[in-house]
Amino acid sequence: MPLKDQMVPDSEIEQVGLLDAVDDLYDGVVVEMKQHMDADIFVPLLRASLSQWKQQGKRGVWIKLSIQLANLVYPVVQEGFRYHHAEPDYLMLVRWLPNTADTLPVNATHRVGIGAFVVNDNREVLVVQEKGGAFKGTGLWKLPTGVVNEGEDICKAAVREVKEETGIDAEFVEILAFRQSHQSFFSKSDLFFVCLLRPISFAIQKQDSEVAAAQWMPIKDYVDQPYNQEHQLFKYVAEICRTKLERDYVGFSAMPMVTASGKKVYLYFNGRDFSKL
Amino acid sequence: MPLKDQMVPDSEIEQVGLLDAVDDLYDGVVVEMKQHMDADIFVPLLRASLSQWKQQGKRGVWIKLSIQLANLVYPVVQEGFRYHHAEPDYLMLVRWLPNTADTLPVNATHRVGIGAFVVNDNREVLVVQEKGGAFKGTGLWKLPTGVVNEGEDICKAAVREVKEETGIDAEFVEILAFRQSHQSFFSKSDLFFVCLLRPISFAIQKQDSEVAAAQWMPIKDYVDQPYNQEHQLFKYVAEICRTKLERDYVGFSAMPMVTASGKKVYLYFNGRDFSKL
Repeated sequence: MPLKDQMVPDSEIEQVGLLDAVDDLYDGVVVEMKQHMDADIFVPLLRASLSQWKQQGKRGVWIKLSIQLANLVYPVVQEGFRYHHAEPDYLMLVRWLPNTADTLPVNATHRVGIGAFVVNDNREVLVVQEKGGAFKGTGLWKLPTGVVNEGEDICKAAVREVKEETGIDAEFVEILAFRQSHQSFFSKSDLFFVCLLRPISFAIQKQDSEVAAAQWMPIKDYVDQPYNQEHQLFKYVAEICRTKLERDYVGFSAMPMVTASGKKVYLYFNGRDFSKL
Repeated sequence: MPLKDQMVPDSEIEQVGLLDAVDDLYDGVVVEMKQHMDADIFVPLLRASLSQWKQQGKRGVWIKLSIQLANLVYPVVQEGFRYHHAEPDYLMLVRWLPNTADTLPVNATHRVGIGAFVVNDNREVLVVQEKGGAFKGTGLWKLPTGVVNEGEDICKAAVREVKEETGIDAEFVEILAFRQSHQSFFSKSDLFFVCLLRPISFAIQKQDSEVAAAQWMPIKDYVDQPYNQEHQLFKYVAEICRTKLERDYVGFSAMPMVTASGKKVYLYFNGRDFSKL
């Protein structure tokens, strides 16, 4: 039993001054700093708080500093904290208090992107040429692609990107394939999902800022482009798309579900094979 | 044409002192700070460098500060930088120089996990009970699960986790299903891939630190556990696993490929339907 807890009444501890903290579900505490504070006021509060948390048997201590409080980053690091993750407007630091290996969760490791294979009843594919990026000026007609936003479902990101780039309304059908690659951005990895979409509207209104050109192109012309024939990954993706149109290729469809904790998620699986039940 | 570029010879600019920077592929520069430097030496160097980069038409300026250089975070933020991402040992800051909307890449948004469905020829599933986590003490026998490491392929992570938790050697066969969920950790999302593996060894040697128990369990007993029957997501995953054993359910197999830039990646797709070609 920690000694100090038994000897010092709560009221006196509060007089010394402690940081406001919220318990987390893993015997840790989270401090979220939003108001400006000078380091010489902050550091004594942090030290007193760390002392109490140790006595209480706390494990992970999280400190979230808004970027307006960048002046506190160095003092917090000097108190034994390391970085955990950062977003544009804040930095999260963490310190593991016990003398054991930490079980702190890892940072996010992947970005997620989509490519949309949108086909009309004439077996024409919706394709674009981009103003920037790796294929700028190559003449390659490619599927509309984009990055899945934070908190966005893959199946919804595909619909959104098609609408944004081409003005076409479409429905998600299934994921035909996906690709994982590494070191895509600094040390981070990348998951790219090729999604089949069914168009609901057909008149193209391209986005001027990113898209140089957009059109409906016969599937054969799309697949036969030299770049798609010469590069293994592009060739496979193009051939999988063609196979989907010509034969009995089934990808993963999306089923919305609610988890035990009430969270809405999507499960993606081979719905045709499963529903033969 | 910027004025100063024409008037000041390169040699004089270097005498003022500039930060070492490497050009990136997007008209930006990357500064990686590893050696200790006092802020009052660093700030004049940064200001002179920013001035030159603006003249050169540079766009994104990246500054990577190792955690030993936390003293420079506040000065860098005061020069108009924001956070981009952080890992335990460094913080990446960025500033967009042009007077246009930035096209800087987003941070990683997802963590990736795997669950391994390992089945022997007796239709028994490899299951574990964990010492910690959400199912501690519930009696639920679950598939071995784990987090995909930075830079690790999904198909290899499944094999590694099975070996680590149970001592069983196994081969990756295919991905049966996957689930995307949001707000899993702070604002980050989570992708969880259910992988089918074929065991090569059969004698269980469980990992003592995380695993309370491990065994081979008849598939029926696994699926029929009350928790798996009462929770929609778990029920679907369990039924998809059973379907795989009993009928003609095909997931996505993994094909290694090399990209145009020489990077090794995996493409996951319905190999059975595609290879009917």
